[in-house]
Amino acid sequence: MTAPKKVVLAYSGGLDTSIILKWLQTEYGCEVVTFTADLGQGEELEPARQKALLLGIKEENIHIIDLREEFVRDFVFPMFRANAVYEGQYLLGTSIARPLISKYLVELAQKSGADAVAHGATGKGNDQVRFELGVAALDPAIKTIAPWRLWDLTSRTKLLEFAEANQIPIAKDKRGEAPFSVDANLLHTSSEGRVLENPADEFPEYVLQRVVPVEQAPDEAEMVEITFEKGDAVAINGEAMSPATILTKLNELGGKHGVGVLDLVENRFVGMKSRGVYETPGGTILLEAHRGIEQITLDSGAGHLKDSIMPRYAELIYNGFWFSPEREALQALIDKTQEHVSGTVRVKLYKGSARTVARWSEHSLYSEKHVTFEEDAGAYDQRDAAGFIHLNALRLKLVATRNARVAKKD
Amino acid sequence: MTAPKKVVLAYSGGLDTSIILKWLQTEYGCEVVTFTADLGQGEELEPARQKALLLGIKEENIHIIDLREEFVRDFVFPMFRANAVYEGQYLLGTSIARPLISKYLVELAQKSGADAVAHGATGKGNDQVRFELGVAALDPAIKTIAPWRLWDLTSRTKLLEFAEANQIPIAKDKRGEAPFSVDANLLHTSSEGRVLENPADEFPEYVLQRVVPVEQAPDEAEMVEITFEKGDAVAINGEAMSPATILTKLNELGGKHGVGVLDLVENRFVGMKSRGVYETPGGTILLEAHRGIEQITLDSGAGHLKDSIMPRYAELIYNGFWFSPEREALQALIDKTQEHVSGTVRVKLYKGSARTVARWSEHSLYSEKHVTFEEDAGAYDQRDAAGFIHLNALRLKLVATRNARVAKKD
Amino acid sequence: MTAPKKVVLAYSGGLDTSIILKWLQTEYGCEVVTFTADLGQGEELEPARQKALLLGIKEENIHIIDLREEFVRDFVFPMFRANAVYEGQYLLGTSIARPLISKYLVELAQKSGADAVAHGATGKGNDQVRFELGVAALDPAIKTIAPWRLWDLTSRTKLLEFAEANQIPIAKDKRGEAPFSVDANLLHTSSEGRVLENPADEFPEYVLQRVVPVEQAPDEAEMVEITFEKGDAVAINGEAMSPATILTKLNELGGKHGVGVLDLVENRFVGMKSRGVYETPGGTILLEAHRGIEQITLDSGAGHLKDSIMPRYAELIYNGFWFSPEREALQALIDKTQEHVSGTVRVKLYKGSARTVARWSEHSLYSEKHVTFEEDAGAYDQRDAAGFIHLNALRLKLVATRNARVAKKD
Amino acid sequence: MTAPKKVVLAYSGGLDTSIILKWLQTEYGCEVVTFTADLGQGEELEPARQKALLLGIKEENIHIIDLREEFVRDFVFPMFRANAVYEGQYLLGTSIARPLISKYLVELAQKSGADAVAHGATGKGNDQVRFELGVAALDPAIKTIAPWRLWDLTSRTKLLEFAEANQIPIAKDKRGEAPFSVDANLLHTSSEGRVLENPADEFPEYVLQRVVPVEQAPDEAEMVEITFEKGDAVAINGEAMSPATILTKLNELGGKHGVGVLDLVENRFVGMKSRGVYETPGGTILLEAHRGIEQITLDSGAGHLKDSIMPRYAELIYNGFWFSPEREALQALIDKTQEHVSGTVRVKLYKGSARTVARWSEHSLYSEKHVTFEEDAGAYDQRDAAGFIHLNALRLKLVATRNARVAKKD
Repeated sequence: MTAPKKVVLAYSGGLDTSIILKWLQTEYGCEVVTFTADLGQGEELEPARQKALLLGIKEENIHIIDLREEFVRDFVFPMFRANAVYEGQYLLGTSIARPLISKYLVELAQKSGADAVAHGATGKGNDQVRFELGVAALDPAIKTIAPWRLWDLTSRTKLLEFAEANQIPIAKDKRGEAPFSVDANLLHTSSEGRVLENPADEFPEYVLQRVVPVEQAPDEAEMVEITFEKGDAVAINGEAMSPATILTKLNELGGKHGVGVLDLVENRFVGMKSRGVYETPGGTILLEAHRGIEQITLDSGAGHLKDSIMPRYAELIYNGFWFSPEREALQALIDKTQEHVSGTVRVKLYKGSARTVARWSEHSLYSEKHVTFEEDAGAYDQRDAAGFIHLNALRLKLVATRNARVAKKD
Repeated sequence: MTAPKKVVLAYSGGLDTSIILKWLQTEYGCEVVTFTADLGQGEELEPARQKALLLGIKEENIHIIDLREEFVRDFVFPMFRANAVYEGQYLLGTSIARPLISKYLVELAQKSGADAVAHGATGKGNDQVRFELGVAALDPAIKTIAPWRLWDLTSRTKLLEFAEANQIPIAKDKRGEAPFSVDANLLHTSSEGRVLENPADEFPEYVLQRVVPVEQAPDEAEMVEITFEKGDAVAINGEAMSPATILTKLNELGGKHGVGVLDLVENRFVGMKSRGVYETPGGTILLEAHRGIEQITLDSGAGHLKDSIMPRYAELIYNGFWFSPEREALQALIDKTQEHVSGTVRVKLYKGSARTVARWSEHSLYSEKHVTFEEDAGAYDQRDAAGFIHLNALRLKLVATRNARVAKKD
Repeated sequence: MTAPKKVVLAYSGGLDTSIILKWLQTEYGCEVVTFTADLGQGEELEPARQKALLLGIKEENIHIIDLREEFVRDFVFPMFRANAVYEGQYLLGTSIARPLISKYLVELAQKSGADAVAHGATGKGNDQVRFELGVAALDPAIKTIAPWRLWDLTSRTKLLEFAEANQIPIAKDKRGEAPFSVDANLLHTSSEGRVLENPADEFPEYVLQRVVPVEQAPDEAEMVEITFEKGDAVAINGEAMSPATILTKLNELGGKHGVGVLDLVENRFVGMKSRGVYETPGGTILLEAHRGIEQITLDSGAGHLKDSIMPRYAELIYNGFWFSPEREALQALIDKTQEHVSGTVRVKLYKGSARTVARWSEHSLYSEKHVTFEEDAGAYDQRDAAGFIHLNALRLKLVATRNARVAKKD
Repeated sequence: MTAPKKVVLAYSGGLDTSIILKWLQTEYGCEVVTFTADLGQGEELEPARQKALLLGIKEENIHIIDLREEFVRDFVFPMFRANAVYEGQYLLGTSIARPLISKYLVELAQKSGADAVAHGATGKGNDQVRFELGVAALDPAIKTIAPWRLWDLTSRTKLLEFAEANQIPIAKDKRGEAPFSVDANLLHTSSEGRVLENPADEFPEYVLQRVVPVEQAPDEAEMVEITFEKGDAVAINGEAMSPATILTKLNELGGKHGVGVLDLVENRFVGMKSRGVYETPGGTILLEAHRGIEQITLDSGAGHLKDSIMPRYAELIYNGFWFSPEREALQALIDKTQEHVSGTVRVKLYKGSARTVARWSEHSLYSEKHVTFEEDAGAYDQRDAAGFIHLNALRLKLVATRNARVAKKD
């Protein structure tokens, strides 16, 4: 690879990406542009600016951007239309944030004339794949630099030595190893590594960061009503809100009631299993509510179709193929099914669970007239069921007759 | 249809099937054989014998059979190997019991020389389909009679008049309408109809029959360890147990902790939506634990394949196609994946939730050596990830290049 | 069912539908509106008008409509975007015409104030389902009457007696039984029944109606170039043509060269197997060419996704669910993949086969630079393959290691 | 990588693998074991022994093994049970041979104490992936060496220089570049590269090696009858034969009649499109015949299920995942469906096409009694169709009613 001249770095302001920043400068002698995204991770971002300035980045090369609304509107909500869960349980909180970061890395590279972008993901995880597939799909001319796969700073000690040698300030609590590694955004907080590495050990309670342990949740249940339009949440308890505001509000509610903690061993795209603890308070409520509103507004044909392609859709997002022709084609299918997914769901939050308890909609397909145990005034003719069953049974009868005939001969 | 000469009736001993028994006798002048199955519904079955005798059934024509072990071993467990859930949420508690009843109806008909079987399911529901497809698949020569689709006893009043006219004893509490309709077996209790018919109304607490309301569950969490062999639970807290004993024990635990209540609007096979409240305490724990053991013992290729066909598998069971070539073919696939799904899972039960908190197995595929954040002694070469990503990205780059080229021309 | 007052009848002008016309009048005393569609079946339709007048239909109640362009543009072409084949072989020529007829039956009913529609399909086939599901989906208030399922004209003799008793003219060649039954439209001709009923007998050559027997096809091959835009054929041999003109032209070419004959035993939706002989000359060429243009313009991710849902899509069309939420959702997916399916394919026609021999496009994703056996100037780094393989192999190695470890213990 | 001590090389005896042999010796100073498989590629293999001896391989390290029966019985036939075609057209002739070679490479390595295997596939193709995934799955301890990805012999000139410098005999016709590259085995011959690289150019006739150009095929059609048992061909024209004999015989017949030539642009697993010309004469007949026997013996439920998973199954084989848990699980499903796929099919071969014209079986599900246009003596009650349609229509009516209601409000 020829050395890059100008690199846009996904920069958190933390120690690791600061080391990367310096390493890019020293290794390639290149200009560095920093990009720090507010995805709702709940950290102050202005310190990243100071840190970047300190490391010699020019004012005009520092970009701190609030992406919370775009994140929820264009990434989280489309994904939730699909009821996407990876391997039956994971709500894809990290996976769905990566393509948005790739999008801005590429846009900033194009605007600033950079020929490369860089990220701080390691060579063992999924995030490197997600970042790099995103960049490849959006601008194949831009190179991606993944320092963790390139450098020889392969131990904590070497990293700290590099930092000291390069006057990178090291916060006191970063001297030692963190007991686990964290990623956070408006949809979730994930924790993995070190104390969590043995899946036979229960995770220690101090791992939890945004959801209270269930035992500490209030003794009183709380109801929340979520209103949907075409598959997207648009209001909470009757009050219209922006996408990011809705997710923020649901996070507060879910966090308070201990909702959305998942302890999972999952299969990474790169071929190994890993154990993570995920906190997705608002997302867990949202998924439950979305299913609740689909229950009454979505036709079974469309619903079963969606269910059947969901695992593939979730896998694509997990593996980093958000910006791929097949994810976009699946999205077209999913979005088509959501045209009438509008109405309101009441969810009960209580000590770790979020359960739909009521749902209503002007778009409802539920017909009390048809389903009732009472007289239905001719809405449904029970005798039709005989014909329905007879024709569904016909091929089964032909199979049974054939099998018996053949068995007799043998 | 020519009148049947001898009919095996799925007989609960309750008012409705007693009316059917009498109706069969009077309508067709046929001999009736009664079949009462113990599927763990939790009712005394001997009274059904007395009732049948009272209605003129000969001693040798009365069959009361304990099917609990067969039910769990040959129906519930195979289904749970698939992590089957219908429409994302329903654990198929009623659906999975029906084919077993069909199997015994057919066997008793063959043994007793009956030319027909009869059931008490109405013409609006799924159960009629499940019973009749089962019978058709097992013996196409046997007719099925569904009195609810045939007679003119179309109101409660008419039914009671018929009962009185035929000296069928009517329990006091059956004089009025039940506020909802119930089906129960070892896997679940379902409630539907009447007070539950409006999905915008929360279900009243008195609907619950085997699970305590979450607020009344103990304030202390309880741990349970479930051991699996080839996908099936074989022990609880280290103690080996038979299939039915395991499910019974899990039901006790789940019921006590408020686990496994589902309020759902689902799509029936016959085309309408219906609302049900399901209590599946043991099944909910079992599903969680099975997923937990698969997390560490199942390869991602097999796991994702299973996930992708699961919705179809669940739909087949829901629709009544247990005894179909395609369910059997899917079962062969699923069973093949379970050869190493062995090990133990610890599940935490607390106020309505059942969560995997630890899992371990001699069959584990989890490799701490590969996933560790620490030095991995060469287990994994991070540079491999570059090639992996580059080739996964290649087609995306070709697409992006093509799209840009075409856009420029336009 | 209450008797209909005014019925729109799908009327071919032939003997059977003339009998139905008269039967509707006599059975219900209702007004009849006739609808005769030109779908390219290759028959004169004006005689249907005379026939209808003769049977007492009012001038303003007779509708003969040329639907060829709409048929190909809105039904055939969208279906071919999916490369839809039922059970691996059938190009759905009859299935795709039925929803269009339903659409016009409903529109004419709505315009003329009719409360019912009627069709001449029997109770054993798929067409009744397709007609009636179409009508139900488009206007649930309109009843469908299927005389073949209702009347007692259950033999040829009774039909002819009814015709004679009602002064319905009977063409000489209709006195006897036709040796097989035919359906035709611009996409195909299907033949089934009677001489074709034994699938162990080869079909007699006289069954073929629009395709010459392969032995009689020209000894010289012929090339045809088909140009596509966004998945639809728009030109033949460089000449732009309307959809119906394109299909007509391809039918001529295919018919001349013996292309597109299929002898099939298929599974009907109503549960039985049936044997048909299908002639789809133009459609067979179109499918081959569409695959040919997709080969170079469609990304593998989108292509494999399409392939995976195609069987379901074809089944929906076969079963009569064109106007269903799930078919529309799948269509959205398919159409999304076709945005760049533009370019030209050369197909060689010769004695029964149609084979792509060349294809080119400005939208091509084929990169000679990448694939070449020659020096590729760095387009592709072969060393990337090592990493790609290593990570794809990782889980397989972990499985093999686990299996060996467990086997050793046993 | 530490240098291997002993390497089993997949050795054809040709120039390229002879160069690899020598390169392994000189690069690593390792002992080389040669493995030459007879997969029906139609070449003399004994010269490979002489060549190997000449290059200094010890007699006991030279293995020439006839794998034709194992190839067809354990790889080709199981795959054909699935009707596997990749991207709608390719019969996977190369893909299916690779895992068998991997199996023997591993077995020979284990027996001879080798620590590595080597193959002659380049870094651009699928075969490297197939070889190496196979080895990884069968023995993760064995390394695979892919010289084409490692050495600097990156041009024809350098290769020839290396050959000359190392006394490797060069056949005269190998001095120049071959106009295209060939792979062959009992299932197919594939050609790609160089003169075939532009997909807009028709392939020259001289590319064909085992199938005559259609114009040169006999003017008389020929019939062949193939008998199946449980999905596998067991006899031709009534004569029982071994698997490899059957495929050999079908190859002769197909080759003579111009059957089974495919000109395709396909998507490689490594991300690029490539163009190939495939000759699969026997396989094309076999696929047609297998579909023919399934038409009458396979239930639609099982058949549609098979169709729906086939694309995934074919993709797995194409991508090299034969020895993977998911391929094995899919195989279990497929094999389960084949229990009654027994009977005989007559296929007509004529100038490039192979068409089923008749099929019969004691396992047939075809019921003339049900399907007949004549009186069916009550086998089928046409009135059942009304109920069948009404219940299938119910949800469509509910959707239409809802949509109309909502539209009115807007």
